[in-house]
Amino acid sequence: MAVHGGDIYGEELQELAGTLAEGVLDFSANINPLGMPESVRRAVTDALSAAEHYPDPKCRKLRAALSAEHGVPAERILCGNGGAELIYRLAYALRPKKALLTVPTFSEYEEALRQTGADFVFYEMESDLRVREDILERMDPSVDVVFLCNPNNPTGILTGRELLLRMLERAKELGTLLVLDECFLDFTGREELSLLPLAAECPSLFVLRSFTKMYAMPGLRLGYGVCGDRELLARMEAAGPCWNVSVPASEAGVAALGEREYRRRAVELVRRERRRMKERLEALGLKVWDGQADYLFFRAEGVEDLYERLLPHGILIRRCGNYRGLGPWDYRAAVKGRDDNERFLKAMEEVLA
Amino acid sequence: MAVHGGDIYGEELQELAGTLAEGVLDFSANINPLGMPESVRRAVTDALSAAEHYPDPKCRKLRAALSAEHGVPAERILCGNGGAELIYRLAYALRPKKALLTVPTFSEYEEALRQTGADFVFYEMESDLRVREDILERMDPSVDVVFLCNPNNPTGILTGRELLLRMLERAKELGTLLVLDECFLDFTGREELSLLPLAAECPSLFVLRSFTKMYAMPGLRLGYGVCGDRELLARMEAAGPCWNVSVPASEAGVAALGEREYRRRAVELVRRERRRMKERLEALGLKVWDGQADYLFFRAEGVEDLYERLLPHGILIRRCGNYRGLGPWDYRAAVKGRDDNERFLKAMEEVLA
Repeated sequence: MAVHGGDIYGEELQELAGTLAEGVLDFSANINPLGMPESVRRAVTDALSAAEHYPDPKCRKLRAALSAEHGVPAERILCGNGGAELIYRLAYALRPKKALLTVPTFSEYEEALRQTGADFVFYEMESDLRVREDILERMDPSVDVVFLCNPNNPTGILTGRELLLRMLERAKELGTLLVLDECFLDFTGREELSLLPLAAECPSLFVLRSFTKMYAMPGLRLGYGVCGDRELLARMEAAGPCWNVSVPASEAGVAALGEREYRRRAVELVRRERRRMKERLEALGLKVWDGQADYLFFRAEGVEDLYERLLPHGILIRRCGNYRGLGPWDYRAAVKGRDDNERFLKAMEEVLA
Repeated sequence: MAVHGGDIYGEELQELAGTLAEGVLDFSANINPLGMPESVRRAVTDALSAAEHYPDPKCRKLRAALSAEHGVPAERILCGNGGAELIYRLAYALRPKKALLTVPTFSEYEEALRQTGADFVFYEMESDLRVREDILERMDPSVDVVFLCNPNNPTGILTGRELLLRMLERAKELGTLLVLDECFLDFTGREELSLLPLAAECPSLFVLRSFTKMYAMPGLRLGYGVCGDRELLARMEAAGPCWNVSVPASEAGVAALGEREYRRRAVELVRRERRRMKERLEALGLKVWDGQADYLFFRAEGVEDLYERLLPHGILIRRCGNYRGLGPWDYRAAVKGRDDNERFLKAMEEVLA
């Protein structure tokens, strides 16, 4: 099983949490520090009677809301039990012979594609961990699908619009599918970098989005994808059960889309705190990459046990050694609210002193 | 896309519901007439803060509760986003060359298995729609997996324990997997027919269960499977995303297992109402099979438009013509509470008069 973050449900952490007065802070998951909006909570509670019925297999209400939000036809939108489910459905529907992945990136792409026996081409990034235009050369006719996470996970680094568009042109030329995972794009405040509006018209582009991070609702499971290839969307629907999106998740999603002011505040808070955290981490002598999402990626040269050192302080971070291309000195930490970040930074200062 | 029941979210039915003072009653879905238990509703509401975290990929709390309920090791239990998700994961994990299905039965088995290119052997039942021991002859060495729904969907007919055990013995001999779908067994009050306790020890048996029907929570999505083949369970885990069970569903499941008295009342109510409905339907000249679940399967000889005739009365039934082996005169109707059933029966009496 993939290890994505700290095992907050495991015995070890549950015990630790019991012994610490201030509890354990999970910096291994990148969730909006403002917490789940009140409207989303209310939507879930209000959906309880509706949950006595099967969900709408066509997710009409949620897709209509997404259609209005993004200005794309509802027929081009597919909802899933979290973004991760759509990655697996995509793998099963496409069954690509060869996939191009960046190194490093979110591990779920590779895991899903391994289920269908895909071969891989890996685009290994240089030490700045940026995608450069030489990725276009790696997109050759043998590649059936390219996954690009923007901003990337675990680095938070953005790929610019111009290169994205060139990748899309190349994908069109080759008949390749470009899968653009924009699950953390909300937090960058750079919506102009999104190719979502193009996806609705383009059969070579699949844009993946999630409600999980921005609306602090990872436990409800809700993501969606937009693609111009209706035949692909139909195959993805057939690749799994038809009642995949729960009634509470669907209602939560509709409510969440109305939270414009909450989104604005979250982007603002994360931007301010990210800057502050980056400075403080750099002051500790760490190499911190230029992440733009609600997390920061850094290297603690020579320190393989940072995770273990932070645990007694009730701080859980993400070890990145199990990402392809990364090593035991690489870590990711969420950007949270001021007080939590302060506790994290103080603990870091102590354990690295 | 599979059509399982009435499209209650569709425009047509939404409009109809708006024009009928008494609304539309959905007899096409077989949900506990007692409705979602209060403890389950509370568990969902109480889970909202927990839903700000990712779900436990290992579903430890729910599996521990299921382990205690059934007396089987938690390691032999796999939870899913509804039972339907586990059917797809099973198909992807097994990739059987050939599958044996009864005719008729729940269509999702065939749909899931078609995704992995399986061939089929169909065991066509005689007019009483019972599984007989000649199914053992159809279990030959070329068959990799057998799906049996007990009680069957859409007929509600039970297969007896003796034949089940002979099928299991045959499966063991052949190295075939017997998948026993007991999603409606709760409602028969015949728990002694369950092979679930055997599944934990037996790598040739997979028993599927659902929370959907008994706890009136189809919108929350929760099912589980028990199997003695740990390697198969591990492949099923890998065949889809790791956060497949939402936090509200998991907490709802734990609460639901405590509802013994509610289950007893539901079985009692359904038994009484099912008997009454069967008599009344037979009095209308319909052929009604000996269903033991919370639904009845019947044939209205020569009447292809029973669904359409009932709609203006605000009654939605399940047309069964799209089940393999069934025809346009075949229908299924849920067994609900007294008042709802009365409305259904009155409408039936009117439209068939």
